Formats: sequence, structure tokens, C-alpha cells
Amino acid sequence: MTAPPLSPTDRSRVRRHRDRQRSDRAELHAVLDEALVAHLGRVVDGEPVVLPTLHARLGETLYLHGSSGAGSLRGDEPVCVTVTLIDGLVYARRWFTHSANYRSAVVRGHARRVTDPDEALAALRALVAQVAPGQEDHAEAPSRKEMAATSVIAVDLDEASVKVRTGPPGDGDAVAAGDDRWAGVVRLETRVAEITTCPALPADTPVPAHVPRRGTTLRV
Amino acid sequence: MTAPPLSPTDRSRVRRHRDRQRSDRAELHAVLDEALVAHLGRVVDGEPVVLPTLHARLGETLYLHGSSGAGSLRGDEPVCVTVTLIDGLVYARRWFTHSANYRSAVVRGHARRVTDPDEALAALRALVAQVAPGQEDHAEAPSRKEMAATSVIAVDLDEASVKVRTGPPGDGDAVAAGDDRWAGVVRLETRVAEITTCPALPADTPVPAHVPRRGTTLRV
Repeated sequence: MTAPPLSPTDRSRVRRHRDRQRSDRAELHAVLDEALVAHLGRVVDGEPVVLPTLHARLGETLYLHGSSGAGSLRGDEPVCVTVTLIDGLVYARRWFTHSANYRSAVVRGHARRVTDPDEALAALRALVAQVAPGQEDHAEAPSRKEMAATSVIAVDLDEASVKVRTGPPGDGDAVAAGDDRWAGVVRLETRVAEITTCPALPADTPVPAHVPRRGTTLRV
Repeated sequence: MTAPPLSPTDRSRVRRHRDRQRSDRAELHAVLDEALVAHLGRVVDGEPVVLPTLHARLGETLYLHGSSGAGSLRGDEPVCVTVTLIDGLVYARRWFTHSANYRSAVVRGHARRVTDPDEALAALRALVAQVAPGQEDHAEAPSRKEMAATSVIAVDLDEASVKVRTGPPGDGDAVAAGDDRWAGVVRLETRVAEITTCPALPADTPVPAHVPRRGTTLRV
């Protein structure tokens, strides 16, 4: 069964630069799947709080890794989870037209604490695979005690928007008007710079193949 | 005059992993200055909304680039601005100990719309320099009409926290207990992948020196 396209609700409709809004659910999935960090917004004592958190998507649900500690998200409250990938920096001819090429996803919903053990385990597996793909098979699954110390939060992807900017600076018409100053785009990439073996291990411990395979397609 | 160290208020005190909290204001500045995107949290109709935005710091003030359009941040409301740099991925021996090496800054405060033209111009200059350093001198400063279409929001760095994780996985003691599985850290870096001249310009338009000088120290 295929989920429906992203039909914006009144409050998830993009207001600025409407031409940048996308309605393809595959684009939402791609942005969420590529990002290594999400920003979780909550309302605490009437004021906004935004904290970075790891995330993973399974189907049409976004999972976040919580804690059972005090002050943490425990589910059953409105949240907004936002993920942003910066693809490039837009160098323009005017201060006003500077920008970034980016893909962002904004997910609004009601957080739900995952209580089903099978769903929690699947979500934790996905969270490990998001940070360290392949390590979910290489590393030890949680003990019962670890499971009890962990809370997994789910947010359904019912109300989400995706915004994408691509392409050159928006002030290219200045050239025809005689402005020959350089302008363009600096494309960015995030890549693996170094793999360091844990110092508790012998230095010659072989690095498993799934680690360097991570490649250069990363975005932060 | 030097600003005081970061003294956490009750609500900006880090609750999880307290050992990761830093009190050096220079670390706050470094995180804010290195990041290319901030996540701005607001409360709208009682619910959280988090949107990505460009930012820049001048002294002890963080500036955000708004719009004078409908629905946008206009100042005079509580906000939370969070910036996160992912430095590495922590591959552990247990699902439970997976993590990321990161530096994050959380700034809470009351947004103030900048009305002084000199302060607004200085902030916009800093916002261009944050995205495209050097371009603030190369590109044209805003016209009066562009200034009128732009809103600049300021948030003072009075209530901010910085959290940093560095180092190997936290489960190194497993080695002494006989677990010789590989674990370690995959360090990431963001770098310039490609510089593309605006297609409206002749392809041989020289790229000014400040553009490639941007270098490889970028983080997203």
C-alpha cells in the first residue's frame, strides 16, 4: 500500500517561496533518511525548546531515541521534528539574494511513546543503522535492562512538508543589465575523514567492511 | 568588556549527560560561528514549530534573517535557536552505546525585531559573510526597498548552553571482558565539492579568490 502524496494542511503549507514546496512523499523519505540529526521542538512551560536528536524512519513513522530520565520527551505531546540538509551555498550579486541550496523536512505531529516491545526493538535497530549502517548486525542488541532505560518516541508522517532550493543565484538578470560580477554556487559534501579504532582494542583490530563502505554520500 | 561565562539558569542546565556541558563562552561562539544553519523554534497556536534559518553572531547577539511577510517571525516572542555540528559517528559494541560526536548550542531568549538601520545593516552583512565569506564586500549592499522587505531578528546570548561529545565509544570496558568486536569513531568533514559559475555569466568569468579560499573546514 502506498501512502498518499503530501497534501499540505493549512498549517503545513509553505508560506515563503511556495515554489520550493514538494509534494512527493519519496522526497520526504529521502531527506529524512539522509540526515544524521533531527531537531525536535517541544513546548515546555509555554516556551519553545529545540534539541538535536538522532532519528530514523520506518515506513510512514519517524522514530526518535529518548530517555526515560526526567525532563525528557515521554510522548503524548505535540512536537515538530525538522531535518535540514545544506547542499550548497549561493553566492549572489546582491546581499539580498544570498541563500543556500537545501532540502528540509518539517514533520508536525503528536509524539507517541512506543510501548510494544517488537516495535521498540525495530525502531532501535533502525536508529543504530541510521548512525552506523551495518553495525546493527555487528553489535549486540539491547538487554532487558537497557530496553527499560530507553524510551522510543514515534511521530507519524501524516503532516509533513518538504522544501527544496536548487540552482543558481536568483539575480542572474543582473548580467543583462551590465553587472559582470562573479556569482555562483559552492556545492558542499560531507564525507568520512578518518576511521579511528577504539583505543581499548588492539590497534591492528581489522575494521569491518561495512564501516569504510559508508562512503562519501553523507550529509550532515 | 568580556561577557561572563555561561552560567546555566535552571532551565538551560543540561539534564542528560551533564559531563558534556561546557561553560566557556568561546565554545558557544565557535559552535554558532561554524554552523551554516540554525533551527528556530517558536510556539504557534500553542504548538511547536521548528524551521531552518540562516544565522550570524555579532558579539553577544545572534541574528536571524526573517521576512516581513505574513506568518513569519516578527520579533517580540520567546524563541529557541539551536545549532548542531556532527563531528563523527560513534560505532559501538552494543546498540545501546551508539552515539554521535557533536557540538550543539541551544540559545533561549526573547526575539527582538531590529529597527535601528545601522544594526540591521551590520547584521545583514554578517549574515552574508556567514554563508559566503568575502562576498559581503564583493556583492551589492541592500537598497532601501530591499531593506524594507527584510526583517532582522536579534536574540541575545544571555541564556545559552553548549553540549559537546568527543572521543571513543563509551563501552570500551567490554574489551577487558573478552569482547573483541571492532568499535570506533568515523570522523566526518564537510568540504567544498564543486564551484559552479552562474549560467547567466560567461563560463570563463574568473572566480574571485575568496570563494575557493573557503577551504575544507566547513561543517554543516
